[in-house]
Amino acid sequence: MSAAVERPAGQLGGDTARSEVRRNPGIARYGRDEIYAVVDQAPVCHVGFVLDGAPVVLPTIHDRVGDQLYLHGSRSNRMLRAMTGPAGACVTVTLFDGLVLARSVFNHTMHYRSAVLFGHAQLVEDPAEKLAALEHLTEHVLAGRALEARAPSERELALTSVVRLAIEEASAKVDEGPPEDEDEDLGLDVWAGWVPSAPVWGEPVPDRSGAMADGHLPVPPSVRRLLGRGDEAL
Amino acid sequence: MSAAVERPAGQLGGDTARSEVRRNPGIARYGRDEIYAVVDQAPVCHVGFVLDGAPVVLPTIHDRVGDQLYLHGSRSNRMLRAMTGPAGACVTVTLFDGLVLARSVFNHTMHYRSAVLFGHAQLVEDPAEKLAALEHLTEHVLAGRALEARAPSERELALTSVVRLAIEEASAKVDEGPPEDEDEDLGLDVWAGWVPSAPVWGEPVPDRSGAMADGHLPVPPSVRRLLGRGDEAL
Repeated sequence: MSAAVERPAGQLGGDTARSEVRRNPGIARYGRDEIYAVVDQAPVCHVGFVLDGAPVVLPTIHDRVGDQLYLHGSRSNRMLRAMTGPAGACVTVTLFDGLVLARSVFNHTMHYRSAVLFGHAQLVEDPAEKLAALEHLTEHVLAGRALEARAPSERELALTSVVRLAIEEASAKVDEGPPEDEDEDLGLDVWAGWVPSAPVWGEPVPDRSGAMADGHLPVPPSVRRLLGRGDEAL
Repeated sequence: MSAAVERPAGQLGGDTARSEVRRNPGIARYGRDEIYAVVDQAPVCHVGFVLDGAPVVLPTIHDRVGDQLYLHGSRSNRMLRAMTGPAGACVTVTLFDGLVLARSVFNHTMHYRSAVLFGHAQLVEDPAEKLAALEHLTEHVLAGRALEARAPSERELALTSVVRLAIEEASAKVDEGPPEDEDEDLGLDVWAGWVPSAPVWGEPVPDRSGAMADGHLPVPPSVRRLLGRGDEAL
């Protein structure tokens, strides 16, 4: 859709109408590393595509390798097919970090980190790249898990489509810090500050069927590391 | 874009190509109450719109009143303007509830609740509706806060645009429960189960400027209720 833009090394956006953050530019980030730090931390992304001229947004999981994002789905997945069309796709991730309470209703906001990626996608046809992408995706969600679980069979691979989105431009926003009130509001007797929020993992819940029925299988290293309890037997 | 579809009372979708969940239909929900329960619990939504023929997805906060969703932004906000165009908008919310670990890589999934809403938006022109929508939005984010903080001034209202999205159709997905493995995998010595995840509020962080400098203002009731500590002096 857009001609390639020449950018300084390490910059992914900020120089086109669609990647420039116009509102509150102080929280905008255009550096590759800052943008990808947000992308990589998010457990899910939201994929926007155009279907019959109208926008559709669906959540899915993602995995970044360099300037490419891998997404997967069933072979008949409409989203993956639409992403490979000429309109391309927009993939957005948002990490909600808390509420920011100002003295005025107007200046209330949130702490969040978000990244917006634009690009065009291609179906991954090469079986080796597809398998590698699926293993990498599993590793992104839970490091170490791809080696613990049974690898995909040829039939399962055939049932799965993988697309590779070339990230053409991007921007991020990082909203942090104290509330920004009008000077004339600072004397008001209104509590101001923020309330942090973060996702927390709970205790693993074992399945109770098959070889799990008698409870002899311990919680695996991938989950123990996720919980920061790598040395404990759970 | 689409002709109105006659639906049973309380149903919002499932009967058109765009609102039907085709993959894993067992987790689909089309009932108004179930869909809106997901919408109302999410702190942020992702709005998809079409700009110059290409999809854009941006995060924002939302507030539902009946079958309408209110969104706001600065007066020059491109997203709000695009939403009122003929292509309409898709608003998607996702609550991430945990990782589901199956015996096979193929059957790994997540616990999540998501809702996808389709509709067309209109700019709210009436100042009274606009003010009410902004107060309601504040209340959705933090109940009780609209009355604690300074109300919007006329200038602030003039700087803010509010749109009302008529929810024309919608669907939700609720993925919960144990992993679904192939029968032939149940005997594998691979740990299977799930790891719950939920957002947790941290301790409120007071601002230290203006009337907050000497620490005499207590944490307000809205925040104490949010934290489930309504009776405590924080």
